[in-house]
Amino acid sequence: MSVIYDRVALIGLGLIAGSMAHAMRAGGLAGEITGYARSSATRDTAREIGLCDRVCDSAAETVAGADLVVLAVPVGAMGAVMAEIAPHLAPGATITDVGSVKQSVIDAVAPHLPAGVHFIPGHPLAGTEHSGPRAGFASLFANRWWLLTPLPDTDPAALARLDALITAMGAKTDRMEAPHHDLVLAVTSHAPHLIAYTMVGVADHLRRVSGEEVIQYSAAGFRDFTRIAASDPTMWRDVFLHNKEATLDILGRFTEELFVLQRAIRMGDGPQLHDYFTRTRAIRRGIIEAGQDTEAPDFGRTPGARPAE
Amino acid sequence: MSVIYDRVALIGLGLIAGSMAHAMRAGGLAGEITGYARSSATRDTAREIGLCDRVCDSAAETVAGADLVVLAVPVGAMGAVMAEIAPHLAPGATITDVGSVKQSVIDAVAPHLPAGVHFIPGHPLAGTEHSGPRAGFASLFANRWWLLTPLPDTDPAALARLDALITAMGAKTDRMEAPHHDLVLAVTSHAPHLIAYTMVGVADHLRRVSGEEVIQYSAAGFRDFTRIAASDPTMWRDVFLHNKEATLDILGRFTEELFVLQRAIRMGDGPQLHDYFTRTRAIRRGIIEAGQDTEAPDFGRTPGARPAE
Repeated sequence: MSVIYDRVALIGLGLIAGSMAHAMRAGGLAGEITGYARSSATRDTAREIGLCDRVCDSAAETVAGADLVVLAVPVGAMGAVMAEIAPHLAPGATITDVGSVKQSVIDAVAPHLPAGVHFIPGHPLAGTEHSGPRAGFASLFANRWWLLTPLPDTDPAALARLDALITAMGAKTDRMEAPHHDLVLAVTSHAPHLIAYTMVGVADHLRRVSGEEVIQYSAAGFRDFTRIAASDPTMWRDVFLHNKEATLDILGRFTEELFVLQRAIRMGDGPQLHDYFTRTRAIRRGIIEAGQDTEAPDFGRTPGARPAE
Repeated sequence: MSVIYDRVALIGLGLIAGSMAHAMRAGGLAGEITGYARSSATRDTAREIGLCDRVCDSAAETVAGADLVVLAVPVGAMGAVMAEIAPHLAPGATITDVGSVKQSVIDAVAPHLPAGVHFIPGHPLAGTEHSGPRAGFASLFANRWWLLTPLPDTDPAALARLDALITAMGAKTDRMEAPHHDLVLAVTSHAPHLIAYTMVGVADHLRRVSGEEVIQYSAAGFRDFTRIAASDPTMWRDVFLHNKEATLDILGRFTEELFVLQRAIRMGDGPQLHDYFTRTRAIRRGIIEAGQDTEAPDFGRTPGARPAE
């Protein structure tokens, strides 16, 4: 592969930016990678592990001369970061972000965009429950979707170049409108995360009653919930606050549906429960066929290897 | 290892019984393994893959001469199966079950127990989202808990012998009272499964609106839910109907808690959300420390290998 951007600036050095750094290096996709994080401890760690070619002490210095700037900070911080770097951007630079919500990021970033700079919002559908500069690995994006929500006036050449970088990191790209993105993600990611957080919170009440048993005997169901609920608190706080309407809509539907099943349990309506569970099983089959997961049984997992890097 | 039971009869040939057959063979723990399933298709498959030494066409024939009988059928079928096999049990035989609910199984099985037969209820906390005679594998129980809820008059020698078999299959055993078991499992397994089923059902509504996108872009959160919600419908219908009170209690707590978080989103209360998510993250850490899961990041998982057999 060959260099797609001469200088890539990463603002925020967490799981996503770190994985991009590893993936770009593995593919030789960037001439130089600069990085910045607000916390000096994060910057120190990034320097210690050599995450970027250069870790800078200001966002301004990091973006100077970059032809690609990646905003990889919590959704609620995007506007302030953009305001800070705007005066220092190189003419013709592309700005992208990796936020899990798109409309609110567009609303926060767009007003600060200098003329001649291309803003192409994006969202890699990839992650783990770990965060921070040590959490990234090169294969995080392999075979994952990376959604782009370009604005109507987006420069086609800038879009094609960003698309080439993402594809070279192993991801598959697709494009959609920002509001539609936010609704689809509310269903597939945001509501499930809130639900997992909630269930783990309930278990914590019981844990105070029954000692360590709830943790000790965490069977498959709960164990997977805790995995989801271990994700970065700041990132997720911002997701819910910035995709408020869609998340509340889906949670409303969820509660209605849960009440129907609760009632079926209370009334002893076995056929209704069986029908429902048969239908959800078919959806799972659809996901496997769509290639987004593997059929390998994962509940009884034995301590596994870290995904290959 | 050496033979612990001369003849083990498996009633029901799904994931758990199949994994027991593989594990007992791998360890040379049973002299002969006989098996029975109600469905002739399941019996045919079991014969084809050589799951047991002998697959019989009746439960009566299967248990004849067995010193251990394992009831591995849905919780709601335990009583009827026990009534059917009772007249055919060998004197001194041990009966155990692998149901996810314990009190209702005891209530259903105990009245049919012949004198001189030992009934020791059990529950392996292991499984995958797959079911049927082909789903089992020998390492399913490795490092997993297998809870026993013996009755007050249980014979200590019979209990020690069953415990030895379970331990030899790689599991760790513990003992608790049946009602307490049912509450702990309602938190760690039953409620999370119902919630996962519900969320996948909600997504299905949206899928009818937005085509295949919900499946195609299933990010980590939802993908893990579908994995849970793909579990066997009959087994889970029975779990909910037979652990009704504890499950409804936990679901009630869950709904209250979810409403608190929904309200925080609606009111834009960032600190409350952040505090909550920070607390749930700590619970996850507790689970890793308790050895029930691995720290390896699992969300960005690449198609993985089947657990070693």
